[in-house]
Amino acid sequence: MQQKNFTLKSLADKLDVGYKGDPDTLITGLATLQSAKPDQLSFLANPAYEKYLNDTQAAVVILTASVAENYDGNVLIHSNPYLAYAELSHLWEKRLAVELRIHDSAHVDPSATLGRDVQLAENVIVGPGVVIADEVILGPNCVIGEDSVIGAGSFFYAGVTMYHGVTVGTDCIIHSGVVLGSDGFGFAPSKGGWKKIAQLGGVIIGDRVEIGANTTIDRGALDNTIVGDGVILDNQIQIAHNVVIGENTAMAACCAVAGSTTIGRNCVVGGASGIAGHLNIADDVHITAMTMVIKSLTGPGVYSSGTGVQPNDKWRRSIARLRQLDKMASRLSKLEKQLKEKRD
Amino acid sequence: MQQKNFTLKSLADKLDVGYKGDPDTLITGLATLQSAKPDQLSFLANPAYEKYLNDTQAAVVILTASVAENYDGNVLIHSNPYLAYAELSHLWEKRLAVELRIHDSAHVDPSATLGRDVQLAENVIVGPGVVIADEVILGPNCVIGEDSVIGAGSFFYAGVTMYHGVTVGTDCIIHSGVVLGSDGFGFAPSKGGWKKIAQLGGVIIGDRVEIGANTTIDRGALDNTIVGDGVILDNQIQIAHNVVIGENTAMAACCAVAGSTTIGRNCVVGGASGIAGHLNIADDVHITAMTMVIKSLTGPGVYSSGTGVQPNDKWRRSIARLRQLDKMASRLSKLEKQLKEKRD
Amino acid sequence: MQQKNFTLKSLADKLDVGYKGDPDTLITGLATLQSAKPDQLSFLANPAYEKYLNDTQAAVVILTASVAENYDGNVLIHSNPYLAYAELSHLWEKRLAVELRIHDSAHVDPSATLGRDVQLAENVIVGPGVVIADEVILGPNCVIGEDSVIGAGSFFYAGVTMYHGVTVGTDCIIHSGVVLGSDGFGFAPSKGGWKKIAQLGGVIIGDRVEIGANTTIDRGALDNTIVGDGVILDNQIQIAHNVVIGENTAMAACCAVAGSTTIGRNCVVGGASGIAGHLNIADDVHITAMTMVIKSLTGPGVYSSGTGVQPNDKWRRSIARLRQLDKMASRLSKLEKQLKEKRD
Repeated sequence: MQQKNFTLKSLADKLDVGYKGDPDTLITGLATLQSAKPDQLSFLANPAYEKYLNDTQAAVVILTASVAENYDGNVLIHSNPYLAYAELSHLWEKRLAVELRIHDSAHVDPSATLGRDVQLAENVIVGPGVVIADEVILGPNCVIGEDSVIGAGSFFYAGVTMYHGVTVGTDCIIHSGVVLGSDGFGFAPSKGGWKKIAQLGGVIIGDRVEIGANTTIDRGALDNTIVGDGVILDNQIQIAHNVVIGENTAMAACCAVAGSTTIGRNCVVGGASGIAGHLNIADDVHITAMTMVIKSLTGPGVYSSGTGVQPNDKWRRSIARLRQLDKMASRLSKLEKQLKEKRD
Repeated sequence: MQQKNFTLKSLADKLDVGYKGDPDTLITGLATLQSAKPDQLSFLANPAYEKYLNDTQAAVVILTASVAENYDGNVLIHSNPYLAYAELSHLWEKRLAVELRIHDSAHVDPSATLGRDVQLAENVIVGPGVVIADEVILGPNCVIGEDSVIGAGSFFYAGVTMYHGVTVGTDCIIHSGVVLGSDGFGFAPSKGGWKKIAQLGGVIIGDRVEIGANTTIDRGALDNTIVGDGVILDNQIQIAHNVVIGENTAMAACCAVAGSTTIGRNCVVGGASGIAGHLNIADDVHITAMTMVIKSLTGPGVYSSGTGVQPNDKWRRSIARLRQLDKMASRLSKLEKQLKEKRD
Repeated sequence: MQQKNFTLKSLADKLDVGYKGDPDTLITGLATLQSAKPDQLSFLANPAYEKYLNDTQAAVVILTASVAENYDGNVLIHSNPYLAYAELSHLWEKRLAVELRIHDSAHVDPSATLGRDVQLAENVIVGPGVVIADEVILGPNCVIGEDSVIGAGSFFYAGVTMYHGVTVGTDCIIHSGVVLGSDGFGFAPSKGGWKKIAQLGGVIIGDRVEIGANTTIDRGALDNTIVGDGVILDNQIQIAHNVVIGENTAMAACCAVAGSTTIGRNCVVGGASGIAGHLNIADDVHITAMTMVIKSLTGPGVYSSGTGVQPNDKWRRSIARLRQLDKMASRLSKLEKQLKEKRD
């Protein structure tokens, strides 16, 4: 699927960086050092892979100037090869095939407003009062609820559901199965069982946000649930009502954030972590995967929990001992006391 | 979106409770004490927020009689302000905009039975033999499989999928992306690999059940998977085949319950907890978030697991020590013996 | 829904095994020993249930030859009753009701290729260049992206989304809400925030794979994400980019596998387990439920993590002590030293 061709010189021009070797070298795609064919571009970002450099068949490799000195092949010179790879990768990107049109099977409420060059794929449903800005693309089966707003250039893959009163900013990418604006989990206990609390707030998603497949973000109870500009959320994440996530925070797959928690900017949350409700997580916090955050984290740093994997028989002993710890501590104190008495 | 107006007196009448202040005070919406505008209703449910009471701009606050004594503003007096808030919140609720009709793009099998005032939104698909009771509303793209049944007054948001032979009770709310009746994970090992076991049971959902976005509930292997009346399930929960959940149990987001486990009534399960298969959880059990339940819990009480979050360097030491615990215990015993010998 | 009838003899013939009792015994369905009615088939696979054998009303029970000796009723004799049950269960299976046709509301791109007896339900969307082999059935609302391929005999329930360039093998079963080929979570950090890396690889799903409801499998960054033949994945699993899963591995619900990890063949991964990125899991590894795998597992065996559930008050003490472990270890060493000094 990578059919577009570029010369080494044209790529260097695109990135406004230098190069080494034949400017006319033809590049037809991207690949890792190990798998690159003689017409492909590769890159060296992780020093651990430098061992593959000499044997690579890549037409061109993106390298830092210092590494380039010791490499004989064609080089695109960049101070941050990984970032250069990120930028060039989009040359070969293929997204949803949508022609510039509103498909006949789309249902758009007459009161909705569509900007210039909006594309709506098969079976898209746009509710009353919705505002969709220029160059928005909605994949098949997307449903946009009443009075919701989508900013310019945002792209929804097939099957995204937005409830009413949800705002998505500009240049966002929303993947399939995402649900935005479902009810927060708010119920008052009563003698007759749980009494539902209507969730009257909305969801506000900032600009340049990416949301992974099957992630769910609930609407606020009274105020809004807020996801800041530049936030990236992986697949199957759950964001509860009234959570606030600061700019440029990244969250890996399967995390869950409970209600009314505030997460700072530039945080990185490892996969399958859980963050309890009503907490504050400071800026620049790094939470490792599968961590159970049950208190606020007030300063930057790396935080973790869990016991890590062990062979089952050893794990069973560890866990049994863990339950004896309280008694072990008492026994230790007693020994210390006895020994002290002996010495005195 | 909160455009409906009510007077203080009319709200007091609705709840059949007393009030204090100007009966004609106009109320246009609901808000927290901190953010309420002069035409909004607020409430004080959590004593920690009492500090915001004196500075609130709310038109009216829901308070208990005793708190109301020391507050000068307009008050709606209720013995349980949180419950009163829950009840009144629905006055400003806005759900899916569906007109009273079957949309042209809906596909309803001729053998299906639809009750009075059923509303089917765009692209809804209703299979053969389905029975849908009065006043049911199905949002866009819902798919109801053969011979399934939906009770009166139930409301499905966009994109709910029910497989064949699934029953949902009355007055349920099912959120987008929910899958009811997918196959249980049943396979017999054989020399040629896993041999699938057809899942021949169904799913029975009781009355007044709410199911959150992207939650999945598998059909039973032979008998049914059962969710009792009044159960509330948050987003992205997984209920495996033949699980039985008792009445009024609440489960927060991202929990997983493995096959054939029975959970009692009035339980509360914190988010991202996992409950292993073939267990029994008693009534009135409270499981805190991210707990790993690997044995039956035979009596009411609060149960937990996990290590809780620590700075990564301290966590690494804790975990290393945890692995040494078995040896530490032996060393402790040895010391005790030595000291005992010395004393004897 | 179990309306098909069979005689004991016909079932024995189907499995090519022996039987005991009346060959004409009529069997109308399958049930457990406890709930079977006098016209139903049951089985004894787990010795723990042997106590129910004498009181069962089942018309016929599948038993091993040795157990059959002491049972007076009708028996289907099989060396592996659970496997026999698995095979016979499909006689009463009911899947999606789809007639042999392409529904009028399906949108099939003219450049797509459909094999013999392909069935496309309501609102199915098949993109440009897609190849769908013989006897494939796609349920309502399935979306198949450009240039994707589906092998013969595969069955998709309602609402499956395949992005472009994804390959599914033969005889697969894909459940509702599954997303195949969504973007891997690849971003390069830069001063201006996260820079998205286009995900140029695909997803390759082998033959006879089953994928549970709402599971997500991301496309590779450059190479493919690969799921081997005979793999079974339960609901709500997340497979990140460039993961490779070996043949016949089984993974229970809610597991998450981070990027570029390779899992061997014939592994069994318990529910809600997490496997970090760039790891290698050997063949025949068994990981128990909710395990946190943060290092490669180089040999077969059973692996676990976590602390297991405790009453909350005891858990609090365990966790507090866990944080003191480092100091306890020092105190223990000190005591040992003191005692040694005393002895010397």
